[in-house]
Amino acid sequence: MSFTNILTMTKSNRKFAIGLDYGTNSVRALITDVENGNEIASVVDPYPSGDAGIFLDSKQPLLARQNPEDYINGFYRSVSGVVRHALDVKDAEFSPEGVVGIGVDTTGSTPIPVDRDGTALGLLPQFKKELDAQSWLWKDHTAFAEAAEITEKASLYQVKYLSQCGEKYSSEWFWSKILHCKRVNPNVFEAAYSWVELADFIPALIIGNTNPNTLPRGICAAGHKAMFHTQWGGLPSAEFLGSLDPDLVRLRNHFNTKTQTSDQAAGGLCEHIAAKVGLPSGIPVTIGTLDCHAGAVGAGIKPGTLVKIIGTSTCDVMIHPLSEPLATIPGLCGIVPGSVMSGMYGIEAGQSGVGDIFNWFVKNMTPESFTKTTNIHNALEAEAEKLAPGESGLLALDWHSGNRTILVDQLLTGLLLGMTVHTTAPEIYRTLIEATAFGALTIINRLEEYGINVVEVINCGGIAEKSPLTMQIYADVCNKPMKISRSAQTCALGAAILGTVAGGYYPNVQTAQQKMTGVKETIYVPNTRAVAVYQRLYQLYHNLHDAFGRNENPNSLYPLMKELIHIRDNTRK
Amino acid sequence: MSFTNILTMTKSNRKFAIGLDYGTNSVRALITDVENGNEIASVVDPYPSGDAGIFLDSKQPLLARQNPEDYINGFYRSVSGVVRHALDVKDAEFSPEGVVGIGVDTTGSTPIPVDRDGTALGLLPQFKKELDAQSWLWKDHTAFAEAAEITEKASLYQVKYLSQCGEKYSSEWFWSKILHCKRVNPNVFEAAYSWVELADFIPALIIGNTNPNTLPRGICAAGHKAMFHTQWGGLPSAEFLGSLDPDLVRLRNHFNTKTQTSDQAAGGLCEHIAAKVGLPSGIPVTIGTLDCHAGAVGAGIKPGTLVKIIGTSTCDVMIHPLSEPLATIPGLCGIVPGSVMSGMYGIEAGQSGVGDIFNWFVKNMTPESFTKTTNIHNALEAEAEKLAPGESGLLALDWHSGNRTILVDQLLTGLLLGMTVHTTAPEIYRTLIEATAFGALTIINRLEEYGINVVEVINCGGIAEKSPLTMQIYADVCNKPMKISRSAQTCALGAAILGTVAGGYYPNVQTAQQKMTGVKETIYVPNTRAVAVYQRLYQLYHNLHDAFGRNENPNSLYPLMKELIHIRDNTRK
Repeated sequence: MSFTNILTMTKSNRKFAIGLDYGTNSVRALITDVENGNEIASVVDPYPSGDAGIFLDSKQPLLARQNPEDYINGFYRSVSGVVRHALDVKDAEFSPEGVVGIGVDTTGSTPIPVDRDGTALGLLPQFKKELDAQSWLWKDHTAFAEAAEITEKASLYQVKYLSQCGEKYSSEWFWSKILHCKRVNPNVFEAAYSWVELADFIPALIIGNTNPNTLPRGICAAGHKAMFHTQWGGLPSAEFLGSLDPDLVRLRNHFNTKTQTSDQAAGGLCEHIAAKVGLPSGIPVTIGTLDCHAGAVGAGIKPGTLVKIIGTSTCDVMIHPLSEPLATIPGLCGIVPGSVMSGMYGIEAGQSGVGDIFNWFVKNMTPESFTKTTNIHNALEAEAEKLAPGESGLLALDWHSGNRTILVDQLLTGLLLGMTVHTTAPEIYRTLIEATAFGALTIINRLEEYGINVVEVINCGGIAEKSPLTMQIYADVCNKPMKISRSAQTCALGAAILGTVAGGYYPNVQTAQQKMTGVKETIYVPNTRAVAVYQRLYQLYHNLHDAFGRNENPNSLYPLMKELIHIRDNTRK
Repeated sequence: MSFTNILTMTKSNRKFAIGLDYGTNSVRALITDVENGNEIASVVDPYPSGDAGIFLDSKQPLLARQNPEDYINGFYRSVSGVVRHALDVKDAEFSPEGVVGIGVDTTGSTPIPVDRDGTALGLLPQFKKELDAQSWLWKDHTAFAEAAEITEKASLYQVKYLSQCGEKYSSEWFWSKILHCKRVNPNVFEAAYSWVELADFIPALIIGNTNPNTLPRGICAAGHKAMFHTQWGGLPSAEFLGSLDPDLVRLRNHFNTKTQTSDQAAGGLCEHIAAKVGLPSGIPVTIGTLDCHAGAVGAGIKPGTLVKIIGTSTCDVMIHPLSEPLATIPGLCGIVPGSVMSGMYGIEAGQSGVGDIFNWFVKNMTPESFTKTTNIHNALEAEAEKLAPGESGLLALDWHSGNRTILVDQLLTGLLLGMTVHTTAPEIYRTLIEATAFGALTIINRLEEYGINVVEVINCGGIAEKSPLTMQIYADVCNKPMKISRSAQTCALGAAILGTVAGGYYPNVQTAQQKMTGVKETIYVPNTRAVAVYQRLYQLYHNLHDAFGRNENPNSLYPLMKELIHIRDNTRK
C-alpha cells in the first residue's frame, strides 16, 4: 500500500456539513468541517434579476420583490459550485459522501404565492411579469396599512395573538403581505393555492415535497412571522383570520398544521436534485430557518449571549430556556419557542436600518474629497475616528428605514440635529454610526428591563467584520465589550451546524456549537471616558426617540413625522 | 467752439454720488448717476487679511475678527479705483467735481477698540497680533454669555432698555462684545479709550475727525446695537452699565452724546484724503449707516414695503411713520427712530443664516455627481426645481447659524428630518431653501401680528439675483409676490442715495428714491397649488420651531439642543 492510498483512506473518514444562506442579494453555499467549523469552500451566487436581485417600483418606494427562479437556479449554481471547489481544495480531503447534513436559512418573512403543486406563481408564464406574483422580500413594506389593520383587530381579539411579538404586527410579515395582495391584486391572490415562506420553499424543493398542505414548515418563520404558536394551537383561528378577510381561511387550510425546529430534518436530498449538484441523494436537509437565527447558532449563542447580525439592517437574537419564566416583552419582533433551537425560546429584535444608512450617506451626501478613494467608507471612517464623542454637537435618529425594535414602526424617518455651517461629512457619518449604536442600546435596555440579562455580545456580519470604529462606538455606547464571531459566514455556518444535528452527527446544537463556533481574538472594550459622554448623549437620543416615536403626550412630535409622510405620499400620487 | 468742447461743457453739469459699502469680505465703491441711479462704475476690494478678510480661531468657532487696516486701505483702493474707472467710461461724462455726496454703509455691530486719538488698537505695533484688539466682526458670537447677562440684568431694570429690540440683547452687539473683551483680555480693554462702530469709524476717518468724544455717531448702529435711544436720553444710564461692569461707565463717557440720521452729513471729505483718491475736498460725507439699512433705501423702501437683503444671512427692514402708533414687537432685532431715514421708525429683523447654509451644503454634503459642473448651486437647483413641494417628505430648521428673529438665540442649531435611504442631495438642498423661506414667513407673520402690514416684498442681494428657485419658493411659502431690486448693488446704491440727501442735492430720501430706485420686470408670483402644500408644511415647521426654540412646556426639546452644545463645548476644551 502506497502512502497515497493511506491518505485516500483517511480522507474518506472526514465529515462535512453544507450551509445554504439565502440573503437579500445572493445565495451563499458553504462547506464546513464538522470537527472545527472551518470553511472548506464557499460560493456566492448573486440573484440576477432586478436591481441586485430585487424588483423595485419607482412609483412605490416601499415595494421589494424577487424572482423565485433566482432562488432555484441559485441553489444549483452555488451547491454544485461549492462541491466542485471543495474537491479542488488541497488537504481538505473533501468527499461528497462525507456530507452529514445540509442546513438552509433564508431571509424572511419572504412569502411566495404558490399553486396547488407548490410551484411559485412567478414561474408560470401567465404571471412572469406580475410583481405581485413574485416573492415578497422581507423588506417590502407595501402592506403597512394591512399591518395596522391586523394589529388593531388582534388587539381587540380574545386570544392575544400579538402578545409574543411586541403587540404590533409588522408590514414585513406573512399575513400583512398576503392581505395586501388580496387588496391590490385579486387575480394573483385567487391563483395562489397557498403561500410558502422562502425558508420552507427551499427545503421543500430539494427534498422533493412541495405539496403546500404537507410540506414541512419551520417554527422559526411560522412563529415569528405568521403568528403560529403552540399556545393557541398553531395558526390564528379561522374566525380571527376570517374577520380580516374570509379568503384567508382558505389559505389557513392549505398550511401544514405542524411545524418543526430547524435542528430537525425536513427530509433527504431527493435523487434528481442530488445528481445535478454532485451529492449523494438522501443527505438529511434541515427544516429551514431565518437567516439571523442561523447566524445566532453560528455565532455560538447561549443563554445570556446577545448575537447581533449587522448588515444593511440588524437582527438581534437571544435564547432563554423554555423551563424558565419569561415575561412578555413589548416592542420585540418575536418570542418563539424553538425558533433558534429546541428547548429554548428564540427572542428576536432588530434595527430596520444600519448599513443601509451608512451606504445612503456615502452614495448621496459625501463630498468629492472623500470619493476619490477606493473605499469611501474607510476614508470617512478614518476622519470620523479622530473625533471625540460629543465633539461634533450632532445627534441623529437611526430611522431612515423605520424602527423595528422597540417602536415597531416602519413609517418613522431619519432625523439629524445640531448642524452648524462648520459641520463636516465625517462628523455626520460618525453621528449616524452613533445613532445606530443608541438604537442597539435601546434594544439591550428593553431586554434587561424585562429580565433578560445581556451577559455577552457577539457581533457578526459585514459591518462587524469591516468597521472597527463602529464596533468601538458600540462598545462605548452600550458599555459592554463587543466580540466578533470567528466565522466571516456566520449565518451559513449556523445552517451547517443545524445540518450536523439534523443529520444526526451531533446530538444537539450546543454540542455542535462547542466544536464549530468561536470568537475572534480582537475584542472591543469600552473606553471609560467615551462611556461617560455617551451616557449623556444617550439621554438626549432617548428624549428624541420618545418625542418623535411615541404619541403619548400632547406635545409629542410623533404626528409631525407622520404628517410629513402623508403630505409626501399625497404629492406623489 | 468745437463739438468736443460742447460735450465737455455738458459733462460738467452731470451729477453723481458715491456709495461705499463695507461688506463682510470686501468693500465696494459705486459711482451712480443721481438722475436715475444707474451705475457708472464700481470697484470691489477684498480684505486681504485672514480667511476671506476674517481672522478665525480653530479653537473658538464663534470668533470672527477683522484687520482695521483692510478697511482703511480698502477705502483708498476702492475709491481711487472707482474714480479712475468712471473717468474712463464712455458717455458717462463723469467728473470728480460732479460728485454731490459720499454715503457710507458697513456691517454691524462691528465695534473697533480705539485709543484716545481714535486710532484702531489693531493698527498699533503692540496690538497687531492680538485678535481681541482687532475689529469685532458682526458675526463674532464669542460674547454669548455676556449677551445673556445683559439680557437678564436689563429685564430686571426699571428702564426697559430692551423693549425696542425684542427683549433680548444679542451676542453680536456692541456692549456684549466690549464686556466679553474685558473678561477675556483686560489688557486690550484697558488700552481702549473708546469703541467705535465701523459705520462711524469710516466717516470719521475720511472727514478727519476721529476724536472718540466728538466723532459723529449714527443713530442706526447706536440705536440698533448699543441701546442708544432718545426715549431714555441716549445710551443706557451709567448706573445700568456700571451694574454690568464699572469700567463700562468710563467708555460711556467717551461717546458722543448725540447721534444723527444717515441722511445727514457727518462732515466734508478732508483734504489729504481727497487728494489721495482723486476727488475734490469738502464733498459731504454721510453719517454712516448699517448695510441693510442702506440696502432698504436702495431698494426703494416705503411704509408697507419689506426689504429683504438676502446673502449669507438676511436682513429684513421695514419703516413706519414716527407719527403713527407702533407696538413693541417681541423678537425683532430693533426698532429705532430715524435708523433708515428721518421721520420714520426703522424696523429691523433678520435670519442668521441663509446663503451660508446653502454654501455649507455645497461644500460639505454634495456628492461628486453635482460637483463636476462649474456652478454646483445651479446643478443642485436644476434638480431641486423638478421636485414638487412636499414630495421629498423632508423638513428642516434653518438654524445652522442660530436664529436672529424671532427667537434671538445664536446657540440654536440646524435640524433635518424625514430622511429615508432614498433621500437625495437635491431634495435636501430644496428642503434647506424651504426652511429659510419658512424662517422668512415667521418674520412676516410676527410683523403682521403686531400691526405692521407687509404690502410688498422687495428682495435684493446675491441670492435674490441668482436663484430663481429660491425666490419662487419664497413667493409660494409666504404667499406674496417676490420683487427684486433693480440694482445689483442695492446697499451701495442706498449709501449713494443717502449721499445725495446729505449733499443737499435732493431734499429728502423719498425724492431721491423716486429718481434712483426701482424693481426688475420679473416678479415671482405665488403658485396656488404650492401655496396650499406649503401652508401645511409651515404648520409642521412652526411646531418644530416652537419645540426646539422655546422652553415653554415640560416636553420641550429646547434643553436637548442646548445640552448637545454644552457637551460639544466641554469636549473641545
